[in-house]
Amino acid sequence: MIPREQLIETAKSVYRSYGFSPIDTPALEYTEILTGKGGTESDKQMFRFTQGKRDVAMRFDLTVPFARFAAQNIGELGTPFKRYHVGTVWRGERPQKGRYREFVQCDFDTIGTTSNSADIETLFIIHDLMVKIGFSDFTIHINNRKILNGLLESLDLQSRSAEVLRALDKLPKIGADAVIKEMLEQGNLTQQQAEKVISLTTLEGSTADILNSLEKQLVGNECGEQGVAYLREVFDAVDKAGIVSERIILDPSIARGLDYYTGTIYETFLNQLPGIGSVCSGGRYDNLAELFTTQKLPGVGASLGLDRLLAAMQELNLLDEVSTPAPILVTQMDAKYTSDYLRLARDLRMYGFNVEVYPDTSSIKKQFKYANRHGFKIVIVAGDEEFEKQDWQVKDMQTGTQTAVRKEELLELIRRVLA
Amino acid sequence: MIPREQLIETAKSVYRSYGFSPIDTPALEYTEILTGKGGTESDKQMFRFTQGKRDVAMRFDLTVPFARFAAQNIGELGTPFKRYHVGTVWRGERPQKGRYREFVQCDFDTIGTTSNSADIETLFIIHDLMVKIGFSDFTIHINNRKILNGLLESLDLQSRSAEVLRALDKLPKIGADAVIKEMLEQGNLTQQQAEKVISLTTLEGSTADILNSLEKQLVGNECGEQGVAYLREVFDAVDKAGIVSERIILDPSIARGLDYYTGTIYETFLNQLPGIGSVCSGGRYDNLAELFTTQKLPGVGASLGLDRLLAAMQELNLLDEVSTPAPILVTQMDAKYTSDYLRLARDLRMYGFNVEVYPDTSSIKKQFKYANRHGFKIVIVAGDEEFEKQDWQVKDMQTGTQTAVRKEELLELIRRVLA
Repeated sequence: MIPREQLIETAKSVYRSYGFSPIDTPALEYTEILTGKGGTESDKQMFRFTQGKRDVAMRFDLTVPFARFAAQNIGELGTPFKRYHVGTVWRGERPQKGRYREFVQCDFDTIGTTSNSADIETLFIIHDLMVKIGFSDFTIHINNRKILNGLLESLDLQSRSAEVLRALDKLPKIGADAVIKEMLEQGNLTQQQAEKVISLTTLEGSTADILNSLEKQLVGNECGEQGVAYLREVFDAVDKAGIVSERIILDPSIARGLDYYTGTIYETFLNQLPGIGSVCSGGRYDNLAELFTTQKLPGVGASLGLDRLLAAMQELNLLDEVSTPAPILVTQMDAKYTSDYLRLARDLRMYGFNVEVYPDTSSIKKQFKYANRHGFKIVIVAGDEEFEKQDWQVKDMQTGTQTAVRKEELLELIRRVLA
Repeated sequence: MIPREQLIETAKSVYRSYGFSPIDTPALEYTEILTGKGGTESDKQMFRFTQGKRDVAMRFDLTVPFARFAAQNIGELGTPFKRYHVGTVWRGERPQKGRYREFVQCDFDTIGTTSNSADIETLFIIHDLMVKIGFSDFTIHINNRKILNGLLESLDLQSRSAEVLRALDKLPKIGADAVIKEMLEQGNLTQQQAEKVISLTTLEGSTADILNSLEKQLVGNECGEQGVAYLREVFDAVDKAGIVSERIILDPSIARGLDYYTGTIYETFLNQLPGIGSVCSGGRYDNLAELFTTQKLPGVGASLGLDRLLAAMQELNLLDEVSTPAPILVTQMDAKYTSDYLRLARDLRMYGFNVEVYPDTSSIKKQFKYANRHGFKIVIVAGDEEFEKQDWQVKDMQTGTQTAVRKEELLELIRRVLA
């Protein structure tokens, strides 16, 4: 829970630094709000029941409640509206590694604007999130759905986009030949059409090269050309922002399954752990709340994969293996000094240190065992002798060194040990 | 949500500064875990249903899940164990002002020790919470149940403690005479016994005076004497800690209803709004998890009344009436400068400012309307003219002053305006 909470607070502070406001919605929604909005799979997995006369269910994601919330409140909130939402969701599926019946989602979205500026900012936020969490070796893959849509348009295949997307999603797993085969069989594409789709989505080279090739392949198609122009703007902004350019990759192969996305799409990978998949994904959509309101609410956003990130951080040894949020433990040698121990701890807290006071005068051995078990970095000890000399014994738990210092030297010593 | 989230983060940071670890438990528990643990009232209010073969319910408080959690995990966690838990709970009651079907509780507890040191620290935490949240004019009322228990023991009335507590809880509302009457009628006390209870619980004067009077009245009764000794230790520690002494009041009249509490008890009042009741309450108990384990888990803790505090802060005008977590808005005059606007915002974020960039190039009038509506303190504007001169126009939204500055002077100006 300690790293989990840190991660959530980091994410929130990044969202806030970009001017996103927190929202919350109830855990329970009327069932009719939730059913059919996430597909039949979600319906089956809902925790649903009746309470009095109300047919209710626990939310299975934060998107549907956000759509309902936006439809009801956007008149008062006004647009553009930027919100983040860190909340628990529930799915009655079989628990397995990294998948639980109850889990937390961390979403952020900008709605009420079609401007590419919001798409660029979404990319920046994902980037800053990763850096602030503590990663440096990651890549954010971006693409724009307008490119594929433009191609399908020019091939007169708009009606086959669901089948094409479904096949393309399997590209990294099954390879180009199998994807072509599926597009032929499931989507009724011709061999030539399928090859064009594959050729466009498997372009490689520098960003500039890929952009130029895309432009050439899509020339004359407005939708596709706009997609390329938007991507150019994104990379110009990345350049101007001074973001490490290797971290942002133009990847025409990412499609993000659902028809829902219509513009920029994002996936984030840890270079050391590509196998765990994208840890932060999202994209632009044309209409958030079409099921609940006639007002069109276009937007762009992404979702941080909290559980995946924590699993990755554990695997990469990025988590401090402690079970206390305080690095300093003040022990209690003698009950007659309890007020002094408590006072010392308060004084250290004033300087921003988290400090725990062992709550009773158990044997000093037991108190040190407690300190070891929880991973305290510093243990402070004082009995009659120390109080007489006005000293505090400070033990550095990593080196084992114990030093007696006056109170006025204590801060400096603590800062040195914790540094 | 903005002040709500700030309040929760403040509370968590105070808990952590005392070495408390976060825990979380699922929203759903097996119904048998929850039923009968909070009284029949809680049972009636539970959101209960079956999922597959499981009879489950949504937690109605954080104490019962904590007891279950502690019983299952204390062997691995070890004692003492200090945890805080900020979590949503659900009660199917009729919603009314300040009472909702879904609300958040903020609890902290130290379990596994009977030491008075933990009681003192609990008081310090409540004090620091109030100060960090932004209150200065508050009082924490404390008492020790051992005093009343000692008196009842010496009057041979232990078996009547529930009735006596129930009557005493009404003291501020119905007055001493009515409480005496109730103790006579409901508790079968004699007039003399009831008067002794009232005399002890309505003592007034300085802390030292009250402690001396209590000591005199309880002389020879071990339990009562210990209660007085513990309270003396609390006030000694308050004194040594340098806490404003007027903030901590010895109040022999507070009883906190339930039999559950057995030692120090706490209630916290805002001096300007006594009517809203205690905003942070708690106490010491003998056994947290007796329903789930034979291991005895004594502890002490308290709970912050989040919704009450927010209502109070609103009434006292302590809430900043803004609907953005960012004080600075960078507007967009011209789409060809989008990368520059985004870059400026990123640079300001590096210095710790929360900065929003208006997501598109709507009319500048519309962007200023947005800024006013959400309460931005500073609006930054730049078009062709400014980019040519390398200036940024900075508008102080409170004074209306607009100043053109170079980028290198921007930070200083922003700091001055926000100060």
